[in-house]
Amino acid sequence: MKIGNNSLKFNGVYIKDSSTAVGPLESAGPLKDYFDYRFPDLYCNADSWEKAEINLVKTCIDDLIKKTNLSDTEIDFIVGGDLNNQDAVTNYAVRDYNIPLLGVYSACATSAEAMIVASSLVDSANAKNIIVTSSSHNATAERQYRNPTEYGGARPDSATFTVTGAGTCLITNQKSDIKIESATIGRVLDAKQKDANDMGSAMAPAASQTIKVHLEDLGRSAEYYDLILTGDLSSVGKPILIDILKEQEIDIEHNHNDCGLLIYDRKKQNVFAGGSGAGCSSAVTFGYIMSMLRENKLKKVLLVATGALMNPIMIFQKESIPAIAHAVSLEKI
Amino acid sequence: MKIGNNSLKFNGVYIKDSSTAVGPLESAGPLKDYFDYRFPDLYCNADSWEKAEINLVKTCIDDLIKKTNLSDTEIDFIVGGDLNNQDAVTNYAVRDYNIPLLGVYSACATSAEAMIVASSLVDSANAKNIIVTSSSHNATAERQYRNPTEYGGARPDSATFTVTGAGTCLITNQKSDIKIESATIGRVLDAKQKDANDMGSAMAPAASQTIKVHLEDLGRSAEYYDLILTGDLSSVGKPILIDILKEQEIDIEHNHNDCGLLIYDRKKQNVFAGGSGAGCSSAVTFGYIMSMLRENKLKKVLLVATGALMNPIMIFQKESIPAIAHAVSLEKI
Repeated sequence: MKIGNNSLKFNGVYIKDSSTAVGPLESAGPLKDYFDYRFPDLYCNADSWEKAEINLVKTCIDDLIKKTNLSDTEIDFIVGGDLNNQDAVTNYAVRDYNIPLLGVYSACATSAEAMIVASSLVDSANAKNIIVTSSSHNATAERQYRNPTEYGGARPDSATFTVTGAGTCLITNQKSDIKIESATIGRVLDAKQKDANDMGSAMAPAASQTIKVHLEDLGRSAEYYDLILTGDLSSVGKPILIDILKEQEIDIEHNHNDCGLLIYDRKKQNVFAGGSGAGCSSAVTFGYIMSMLRENKLKKVLLVATGALMNPIMIFQKESIPAIAHAVSLEKI
Repeated sequence: MKIGNNSLKFNGVYIKDSSTAVGPLESAGPLKDYFDYRFPDLYCNADSWEKAEINLVKTCIDDLIKKTNLSDTEIDFIVGGDLNNQDAVTNYAVRDYNIPLLGVYSACATSAEAMIVASSLVDSANAKNIIVTSSSHNATAERQYRNPTEYGGARPDSATFTVTGAGTCLITNQKSDIKIESATIGRVLDAKQKDANDMGSAMAPAASQTIKVHLEDLGRSAEYYDLILTGDLSSVGKPILIDILKEQEIDIEHNHNDCGLLIYDRKKQNVFAGGSGAGCSSAVTFGYIMSMLRENKLKKVLLVATGALMNPIMIFQKESIPAIAHAVSLEKI
């Protein structure tokens, strides 16, 4: 049901299970025990970066199908995307399954967009079981958006480090202990930021807009949530987000965190301002957050996946970088 | 409601109105009178190809908002995408509207995917009014998928010519004379085709799969439809599609056509095997087909938008080109 300006309230939409796969740096980070598969090198048993990312996605989907004990025909649809041009990794990964695909893209906010599209299909009895997937790989993303990692170019402290990882979950109409309660679809917001090495500043205004609209639409204060978890604002974007919301009398200082700050240990790991990528929010949400909810350490979580809608050709044409953020409210029953 | 394996049957989902904008070659083609805006040159009042395509999209959205007499706040969401890396044209076009965006991508099948996602949201009372958009531009697509047009590279006869055009429609729960009756979500099918200059051969098997599944799911024969309209199979893909279906005892020889064959006059216009692109199916459907339905010249149309999920990096890695096709059933009431 549509609620308020930009939000949806779902009835009977649950997460049955999830699966995650990550690369070597994420396997050495503070959340390592929460991931299902940890690949010891960036090639992930493949011979190219793109095929490595395809393996991450397929590893998760295979594992999820096994965990949920569903056959191809019981899974209605796959909804997902990635950061590669033309969602290539998702398209190539999915060709090996006999399941229809809805490809989505909103940069690093893809995980939340996929959850919203899937939840809306399940909510309306248009589907019973949907696999949601999103991924990123450090070497595919750097080559595409900036420079190939092999160049070894120096990067400023405001840059984020693209997570090598994939996350999937099964969204279902069968009651489970984790409910997808509501969601807010984001509007594209261009904060006129032009630095391709500072995504945090580009995305923080979009995140603040979505959080504000979500709380207004649902008639909630920020304290309603145990945790408001942005996708990849990093150490640069986090304080900007908190400041913007404070100016609007919304205080999230004590219940905000960022997937990009959780996945790495910035003191010990050389990741600049923190993690980013469509695999960052999905690996952290479907790995760590799912566990926290299951163990009752968190009860109400607002996932706010954040996406810088960057395209190198538009940067060459001196355009700024628009951003978007989609929010999904998860509740432990 | 889910019906059969991969299909949805909608209840109370309509198209209120539509708008289209095209470039110079489309403005000289046989469907010229059905487009709302005809730009006399490829720059479409902009100073780069990407900005030209953004202008095509914004021209249509502005016109659609005017025609439907709706304000920003009455339009719930925009659902759409394009062929540019990272859906850039859609993202940049939409930043100027205060309307939430769900970005989707399935190559030249994007128009149908966007219609399906939007119809499912309206069907479930999650939205009342949604703008659907998709576009392509000859010069942006050629630069991205093959070579910049400025190179003037020779092309084989199997190549298609990317349409410069955009199409939008408003999908609503308010009764109108054109109903979105049902849809079938496609599965990714890889026919192991590797030639980036022959998309028709890559897509025809995916189109045949979706048509077969649609007819089975809905319990219909092919004659149920006045017209089965594929997106951009061209003169190469059309006979392949008809042959594959004939082998499965489905005869569409007399009620099949292809948007890519309708939009140009191949005898007079130098477009090789015909038109293609995400703007091809959307301009033809939201321009010509909408008029044919309104004038009762067509009653039941199955739009089968076809997408080659091609990515140049995967081609360099000697991978084949997977394809997808999504079907949407339109009925004149």
